[in-house]
Amino acid sequence: MRDFSRDHRWLSINTATLRGAGTLDRIIDACARHGIRAISPWRDQVHAIGLDRTAQLVRANGLALSGYCRGGMFPAADAAGRAEALADNRRAVDEAKSLDAECLVLVVGGLPGALSGTPLSKDLFAARRDVRDGIAATLEYAKSVGMPLAIEPLHPMYAADRACVNTIEQALDLCEALDPRDGGDGASSPGALAALGVAVDVYHVWWDPKLEAQIARAGRARLHAFHVCDWLVPTRDLLNDRGMMGDGVIEIPRIRAWMESAGFAGYSEVEIFSSEDWWKRPDDEVVATCIERHRSAV
Amino acid sequence: MRDFSRDHRWLSINTATLRGAGTLDRIIDACARHGIRAISPWRDQVHAIGLDRTAQLVRANGLALSGYCRGGMFPAADAAGRAEALADNRRAVDEAKSLDAECLVLVVGGLPGALSGTPLSKDLFAARRDVRDGIAATLEYAKSVGMPLAIEPLHPMYAADRACVNTIEQALDLCEALDPRDGGDGASSPGALAALGVAVDVYHVWWDPKLEAQIARAGRARLHAFHVCDWLVPTRDLLNDRGMMGDGVIEIPRIRAWMESAGFAGYSEVEIFSSEDWWKRPDDEVVATCIERHRSAV
Repeated sequence: MRDFSRDHRWLSINTATLRGAGTLDRIIDACARHGIRAISPWRDQVHAIGLDRTAQLVRANGLALSGYCRGGMFPAADAAGRAEALADNRRAVDEAKSLDAECLVLVVGGLPGALSGTPLSKDLFAARRDVRDGIAATLEYAKSVGMPLAIEPLHPMYAADRACVNTIEQALDLCEALDPRDGGDGASSPGALAALGVAVDVYHVWWDPKLEAQIARAGRARLHAFHVCDWLVPTRDLLNDRGMMGDGVIEIPRIRAWMESAGFAGYSEVEIFSSEDWWKRPDDEVVATCIERHRSAV
Repeated sequence: MRDFSRDHRWLSINTATLRGAGTLDRIIDACARHGIRAISPWRDQVHAIGLDRTAQLVRANGLALSGYCRGGMFPAADAAGRAEALADNRRAVDEAKSLDAECLVLVVGGLPGALSGTPLSKDLFAARRDVRDGIAATLEYAKSVGMPLAIEPLHPMYAADRACVNTIEQALDLCEALDPRDGGDGASSPGALAALGVAVDVYHVWWDPKLEAQIARAGRARLHAFHVCDWLVPTRDLLNDRGMMGDGVIEIPRIRAWMESAGFAGYSEVEIFSSEDWWKRPDDEVVATCIERHRSAV
């Protein structure tokens, strides 16, 4: 297992962690001040300052992109909605490519309408069919431009409104169905990421009794990203009460050890949604704390 | 599949649904006024009016107990705490027996201290070992008095503080390890409940992509209870924002069909924690709505 205690070479900052800091250029400035080597930006933040400007800042600061957030949201109430989602995912693939991201993260979506508070259907099976079809179509395009897709299984508490893929097992079943590999172990192209893999966020999966086994099943080729934060006790809000690593109950080093045993050697990407705490603090304090906790609690 | 549209013969009221109505005697009165045939009381409500008085009211009103809530909470920071939990579970078994409950429901517990807001450990593996050992010890006693135990897998959002058994698959793995049956299908004693089974609460398991398969795996002998309510969109609180059946996004009839296909023929027990809505309404309105929704949405 890599020693993170001496530097933060393998720390990436998901830019949602710094939503309190303002626009993406300011966020990148804050990261640069602290010697951050990688980020994972959100599309809305990129669009706000423009893709070209983002690419310029990323290059100027020598930043890698551990991922690009996010594609997905495939289910829709009708064919027009599904087609719109596919077109938007195609644009997301293009943006990820032009920023040279390691992967495009997919938050696959839940019941149509649920995210805006008015579910138009209760049919989780239909939503999962839309997800499967949407990933299949997006994968075809992503393969053609060479952009790996990473399905992020979300915590089951988001099954209705954000993602109806809720375990790594379920995500890997999709990977194997849509992107079969020789023997399923990536042996056909050692070291390369599969065209379709998973993003493992400890917040979403730490509770899963099958987590260790499913990370091993994924193997290096399907482990596209590793996101960290912490589960607070108590948790006061379903979405925006994530904790800084070390402040909650997730045994993050244990999970990272499983990831590395399976061959993962990439960034630990800090992604904290925290409307009442971290988003209210100065950006330098947030980044400095991410670095300190990356060394001590990841 | 049984037709629930004409009567509420198979409706049970979990008394937590009527926490706003006052003491258990008042809750039982409200149920009796509406011709409810079964309830599932909570221990704190029973203790508040006394076990003898509860037994008397249950008998006088001809009520069945679809379950007794609850045993469990096995993990503790030290041996004394674990012993105390076992002693308390033994008392819970005795109470369930003296009330002639169909089963004692087990909410198994999470990380020691987490429920009171100060987790003393992050070791989910240790908690799960405590749970396994605690169920094994309690099962021995429960078998001796003939009280079936029902492990209730709780939604993964409760893994830290309430229950580290979070899927039916995980619960059934425990059942098969601690209470093996010939062939695992209950064939050795047709129609009888296994000494150890599961309580399937739609709120906790509706999102699970393996739900149908695991209900089938459980079979009649391990399906000890069926709890219903609904998942609201949005959900504003992790614990006390459950919805009335029909007001959320769970396809309850679909899940009941799976239960009945597997041989379940018992009560649909309404368990709604709702501090800001149903607990504020008059008891007659709550019970009448449970009846109406039992007919139309279960």
